[in-house]
Amino acid sequence: MIDFDYVNPTRIIFGHKAEDKIADVLQGYGFKKALIVYGGGSIKRSGLYQNVINKLDWKGISHVEVSGVKPNPDRRFVLLGRDLARNENVDCVLAIGGGSVIDVAKGIAAGYYYDGDPFDFNLHKAVPKKCLPVGSILTIASAGSESSDSCVISDEEKHIKSGFNTPLNRPLFTIEDPELTYSVSPYQTAVGITDIMMHSLERYFNKSESEMLSDAWALSLCKDVMSHGLGALKNPESYDDRAALMLDSSLSHDGLTALGKKAPFVVHPLEHGLSGYKEDVAHGAGIAICYLGWARYVYKKDTEKFARLARVLFNVDVEDDEKAAIMGIRAMRDFYVSIGMPTSLEEVGITENELPILASLVSGNGTRVIGCCPQSLEQKDILAVYRLCLKA
Amino acid sequence: MIDFDYVNPTRIIFGHKAEDKIADVLQGYGFKKALIVYGGGSIKRSGLYQNVINKLDWKGISHVEVSGVKPNPDRRFVLLGRDLARNENVDCVLAIGGGSVIDVAKGIAAGYYYDGDPFDFNLHKAVPKKCLPVGSILTIASAGSESSDSCVISDEEKHIKSGFNTPLNRPLFTIEDPELTYSVSPYQTAVGITDIMMHSLERYFNKSESEMLSDAWALSLCKDVMSHGLGALKNPESYDDRAALMLDSSLSHDGLTALGKKAPFVVHPLEHGLSGYKEDVAHGAGIAICYLGWARYVYKKDTEKFARLARVLFNVDVEDDEKAAIMGIRAMRDFYVSIGMPTSLEEVGITENELPILASLVSGNGTRVIGCCPQSLEQKDILAVYRLCLKA
Repeated sequence: MIDFDYVNPTRIIFGHKAEDKIADVLQGYGFKKALIVYGGGSIKRSGLYQNVINKLDWKGISHVEVSGVKPNPDRRFVLLGRDLARNENVDCVLAIGGGSVIDVAKGIAAGYYYDGDPFDFNLHKAVPKKCLPVGSILTIASAGSESSDSCVISDEEKHIKSGFNTPLNRPLFTIEDPELTYSVSPYQTAVGITDIMMHSLERYFNKSESEMLSDAWALSLCKDVMSHGLGALKNPESYDDRAALMLDSSLSHDGLTALGKKAPFVVHPLEHGLSGYKEDVAHGAGIAICYLGWARYVYKKDTEKFARLARVLFNVDVEDDEKAAIMGIRAMRDFYVSIGMPTSLEEVGITENELPILASLVSGNGTRVIGCCPQSLEQKDILAVYRLCLKA
Repeated sequence: MIDFDYVNPTRIIFGHKAEDKIADVLQGYGFKKALIVYGGGSIKRSGLYQNVINKLDWKGISHVEVSGVKPNPDRRFVLLGRDLARNENVDCVLAIGGGSVIDVAKGIAAGYYYDGDPFDFNLHKAVPKKCLPVGSILTIASAGSESSDSCVISDEEKHIKSGFNTPLNRPLFTIEDPELTYSVSPYQTAVGITDIMMHSLERYFNKSESEMLSDAWALSLCKDVMSHGLGALKNPESYDDRAALMLDSSLSHDGLTALGKKAPFVVHPLEHGLSGYKEDVAHGAGIAICYLGWARYVYKKDTEKFARLARVLFNVDVEDDEKAAIMGIRAMRDFYVSIGMPTSLEEVGITENELPILASLVSGNGTRVIGCCPQSLEQKDILAVYRLCLKA
């Protein structure tokens, strides 16, 4: 087990009508003026927006807002919000939405105290020293940003999508009412399932001693997501299934499934290359495609881990590790298909001649390697992985 | 899944020579004067005490101390420490030790701002409104107090041992160097193994929907403790086994294995009756005895849960739930025996005619029921459970 320094200060306020507590929660922390960040009109149509505004107004908590945030959010939202936060002297940022909205809120919170362009953090040119407090009202179980230390932002012009991590970025609280996710479409639910699973799998595949608790927790979390994910797809208003997915989202990306081990991500950077290049690819959908190509490329280097996954998640019952590993990759593909995820680059309209562009983006034109377990990938490996992603 | 409001702000600073960071950690929080709480001479013999003092002196952090804290610590230590903390105007309490020492530190921290007798909290006559910050340098993997919200103190005179819970009691940090536990005796290691397991099992046995992640995490944590516990007993200087036990201790009692469910304890109160009455019984040893009697008394009311435990922890491979449940209870007894734990009240010198006294203590002379799953226990049930604890 390696040395670590871990704390997750994010408070999870979970359950029926939890969003009704928003004003009391903000007041409990002493906040007086919030910058609210949200996406499109769905929170207005559902009444959530007006409910929150009423609660804040009732308690005398002022608010200004940034809206229209889209998936794979562009850096301009962060700049806009940062300027507004400064001009209006807010004392906290409240995200109402999913990962994209929360990441924009985090970018604003970090940019607030920084003189340069907040995207510098994402380009790893600067490190935040201080951040405004961020809270969220979660409306989709997926990214895990509500309790993670990461913030992923895109530069649409330059086709770059990049994240940074800082403990200062952990939200102060997340309000989670599973009923708010009843209206999430089957496709977006599946995107969430895929994303949540991958947050634990990225950690699982990193090097560990045998029988590490974090590995066991990662796999049981994935199993929970699969089971309750299928439940939620079958019955979108199943409270317990939606609740499990929501909590899994928060637990999968908060670092618990990597305690005591290093955990650089590899499938996520591959996917960031893909959805950075082609913005209409949903992150979770890109994850499904990239995982399969990556697994095919590397499984022989750690057949035990791939086999263990196959046995735990898919009840694969063969003794030979290599066979079990292959069966596990196929079973994962079948699972993705069963929940409506794409499983090849072809399906999202990427052709073979575009692959070198992707590989160049992800490797920083050959200056960067990604991941480490079971092997690190340089530009030529990344290209080879994308080739294995082309067809299902 | 039931509604909840969860946060665990305890920072875990884990690894090789982590204790060397103590002065930097305290300084990082801005603390200037610490009340140090510890037990007997072992931290002096090992050099840990002097190392900490040197580090604090070097950074100019003042300190006063309360020492001599014993297992099942008496309320007088809390009173003594509370008065000293007030007279000396400390701004934090640093526990160096295990659960008893940390619980005394928590009692002092809560008592600091309270006019009455701090034991009022343990008697549930008052609720803390504010607490001094507490940190720990952990020297034994067992109680989980280093990241829990609980504080158990004894009244030796009245043979009462009682705990209270408050989110204000969660330590700010815990410093965990597995090497500090190399010198923990086989017996105390086994006591720790039993205690850590029970923190997750108490939660596991409470009512849950099928496939709750918290249940899966509780059982995989227990499995981890058993495996690494046997490893540590075989090789007391196995870093990875000691590290796993230490981290398991902190994760088992921090509430993660009960997210989304209620979790009143039942075996712990039974044990508090036992070690409150007979102070020389180590908490973990008492737990082993009480668990077996309790399991024998209630298993028929939830054979599925007892059977699942048997299958996951002991690889019991029979289809019939009741048979599996019984085999699981026997396997647990064998496991306790294998690590040197007592498995009957007879072994710790309690005779049948003393049982009514224990049952009266635990039930508050018939005014209190304990636990709820699979059934709550009133005085007559408690007596019946103790009867089933008499012989192995």
